[in-house]
Amino acid sequence: MRKILIIGAGRSSASLIKYLLDKSEEENLEITIADISVDLAESIIKGHNNATTLVLDIFDEDARVSAIKKADIVVSMLPARFHVEVAKDCVTFKKNMVTASYISDEMKALDAEVKKEGLIFMNEVGLDPGIDHMSAMKVIDRIRDNNAKMLLFESFTGGLVAPESDTNLWNYKFTWNPRNVVLAGQGGAAKFIQEGTYKYIPYHKLFRRTEILNLPNSGKFEAYANRDSLKYIKTYGLENILTMYRGTIRRVGFSRAWNIFVQLGMTDDSYTLEGSENMTYRDFTNSFLAYNPNDSVELKLRSYLKIDQDDVIWEKLVELDIFSATKKVGIKNATPAQVLQKILMDSWSLKKDDKDMIVMHHKFGYEHQGEKLQIESSMTVIGEDQTYTAMAKTVGLPVAIATLLILNNKIKTPGVQLPINREVYEPILKELELHGIVFEEQKKQYLGYNPEFVVG
Amino acid sequence: MRKILIIGAGRSSASLIKYLLDKSEEENLEITIADISVDLAESIIKGHNNATTLVLDIFDEDARVSAIKKADIVVSMLPARFHVEVAKDCVTFKKNMVTASYISDEMKALDAEVKKEGLIFMNEVGLDPGIDHMSAMKVIDRIRDNNAKMLLFESFTGGLVAPESDTNLWNYKFTWNPRNVVLAGQGGAAKFIQEGTYKYIPYHKLFRRTEILNLPNSGKFEAYANRDSLKYIKTYGLENILTMYRGTIRRVGFSRAWNIFVQLGMTDDSYTLEGSENMTYRDFTNSFLAYNPNDSVELKLRSYLKIDQDDVIWEKLVELDIFSATKKVGIKNATPAQVLQKILMDSWSLKKDDKDMIVMHHKFGYEHQGEKLQIESSMTVIGEDQTYTAMAKTVGLPVAIATLLILNNKIKTPGVQLPINREVYEPILKELELHGIVFEEQKKQYLGYNPEFVVG
Repeated sequence: MRKILIIGAGRSSASLIKYLLDKSEEENLEITIADISVDLAESIIKGHNNATTLVLDIFDEDARVSAIKKADIVVSMLPARFHVEVAKDCVTFKKNMVTASYISDEMKALDAEVKKEGLIFMNEVGLDPGIDHMSAMKVIDRIRDNNAKMLLFESFTGGLVAPESDTNLWNYKFTWNPRNVVLAGQGGAAKFIQEGTYKYIPYHKLFRRTEILNLPNSGKFEAYANRDSLKYIKTYGLENILTMYRGTIRRVGFSRAWNIFVQLGMTDDSYTLEGSENMTYRDFTNSFLAYNPNDSVELKLRSYLKIDQDDVIWEKLVELDIFSATKKVGIKNATPAQVLQKILMDSWSLKKDDKDMIVMHHKFGYEHQGEKLQIESSMTVIGEDQTYTAMAKTVGLPVAIATLLILNNKIKTPGVQLPINREVYEPILKELELHGIVFEEQKKQYLGYNPEFVVG
Repeated sequence: MRKILIIGAGRSSASLIKYLLDKSEEENLEITIADISVDLAESIIKGHNNATTLVLDIFDEDARVSAIKKADIVVSMLPARFHVEVAKDCVTFKKNMVTASYISDEMKALDAEVKKEGLIFMNEVGLDPGIDHMSAMKVIDRIRDNNAKMLLFESFTGGLVAPESDTNLWNYKFTWNPRNVVLAGQGGAAKFIQEGTYKYIPYHKLFRRTEILNLPNSGKFEAYANRDSLKYIKTYGLENILTMYRGTIRRVGFSRAWNIFVQLGMTDDSYTLEGSENMTYRDFTNSFLAYNPNDSVELKLRSYLKIDQDDVIWEKLVELDIFSATKKVGIKNATPAQVLQKILMDSWSLKKDDKDMIVMHHKFGYEHQGEKLQIESSMTVIGEDQTYTAMAKTVGLPVAIATLLILNNKIKTPGVQLPINREVYEPILKELELHGIVFEEQKKQYLGYNPEFVVG
């Protein structure tokens, strides 16, 4: 039996565990799932013969080392900042390792040792990062193989609610960490390059500079720019590309309404509100508006942010109860972002039967034999239920597949790496297709950023 | 002879040095001015018998200690972060000390030792902080002495260009550190309390939430909120006050136009622009606008920020040459804020004969025997020339006066302190009046924040 140790059994591990369990007989796998709490893991393995759980505090060095020593390969699904302890043990005890997280500087620093030991530390092999890298590199490599020159790369991903569970005016529910949604886009200007010109969008304008996407099967979406699109230029070997843009997908109209929260200052996580615990939602809203004893909070907000009487934005705000004089915040020393999160969780939490949806879309512009062309590649995945969500599938399956490929010696190149090489992405993408994670391609005329050339 | 050591001979030291020199005969003062560069000091003392200069690197401990040991009192006009080294020596060698800077945590930590030695470390005794504290406490103490209850305190200060030198559409020139002007308001939401309600303004809305001020002698101004008005509640002993607001004064219309830079993201100091050195001002402006090869930078900006064709904001932007395709940035790895500063310095630097102006305005609302009343107190100071600017006078004179009062044992209470006690502010304000720094008071009906009570 080959022993796989999975450390961290959060929501994204369900599909990962199930995939490996389903393969455990034919592949002779013995799977140990270790976490501080193993309730979710127990509910998935349901007493399966080839799986055991282990209550593990990863800061307990003896217990951690003991578990890692017994494994043939280690999968870390811990929050990214905790990977490095596991990674160091994996070097010491010569174990391959897989994560779905961005390669940290500390992880990168292990590269020489990892290579020396002939080990494979595969990172960024979830959804985003993960499937985005693999599905992009597959097309980019094909374009280059054909002696064409890459001109444009745009990539968009969104975690959304499935159409059948889409029951609010925002067309959005929390399918992942709500805090990350509230803080999205903060921490610096968004940077990208379009047709050779570097562009910068400050946070307070980010949600007013969206792009519209028409996807072949799932309709119309919008996207706002991710913080740093430029770093992918080097990762993908696209030096001198004219356009490089990465964005986050939402349903059309989300960003314009979300911008109201940004403009008011409700997404700020840098200070605490006086007396937050006893504030009503209405008090919270009013604390960002000018004092005036004669005007209602509603009218002050409308006037301040110039919201027309018949603008649907207004209904979206009302739907969230931000003007409620009875609902209480109930959190001591809360930041505005924490209060907003609380308000949104009242309305945007998934219900028992709700399903989520992942949408990914790439645009590749290139020049081939003097002709400019464009390929668009799209993926849509709908979750099965609240355990095998689209998020759990798209994050967990590529991790599981990569783990088995490494174990079976199909991925051989050693080093701290991400899945941008054919050896890695080709078999993973092929296997993902068998699980309904499929990209559909369209060839198009090159549009670039000159769509309506009318001067006058 | 009593020996005064002044460390730091920057622009704000001119009036400080002159005041002490003018008093040096009658008061038996021997003044040493120490700095890494003493050019400005030399030009002010012009070989005066009672003054010497000393080239001093304050990080050279031996030289610093030697200078401090010889002095009877030490004035530090260094940047605030450098005071603490001087302060520690002053404790060691039992010297009184004066600064115009906010009391840092490190300075505060010396309080017990300073008191034990019976020393006086007077801080925040310049303009803002300084004259603001003193002129406010004078009225607040009088109101309280009269058994009235403080309801409201608002305080506004601005460093502006004098009307006779006001030659641009912004009615503004740099009379102080331009970098501070570009970064003003950043680093967190503005916080204050109005009629018992806490209010928060995010940076990107700060310049659209101005208040209008009508000052008795100098006309109409506007003010935007300072970052933290709340900390003064404790300093002034105004617990339970309903309104506490501090702001920065500009000429009317400045903030609305400045907001354009904020909205574009031009005041951001947190990242560097790709290829900044070879950018033109036009490239810089364009980097914050959407890519479109058919539209001009001008039209894109107008459309993005909804600037009407006849809005004077537009002329203000044009006046600064932000659309120039020939003027180059010429700074490597510049942040947006650094580039904006460069552009503004082309237009807003004081000319040789330009004069500056300091405006300060306080509002005190209180209740006395059931009646609500308001006092307003205003000060305007115009600079003499580019050496004895209004800024140098209002910062340097209170420092000089405090120094002499301590030396003459008129200020006696030991400790690390700021000038909020009568013993300190009364003689300083009296002496300032002899130098043209005068507050004029008006009694008014209490307005508070309920000025136009019309419902319907």
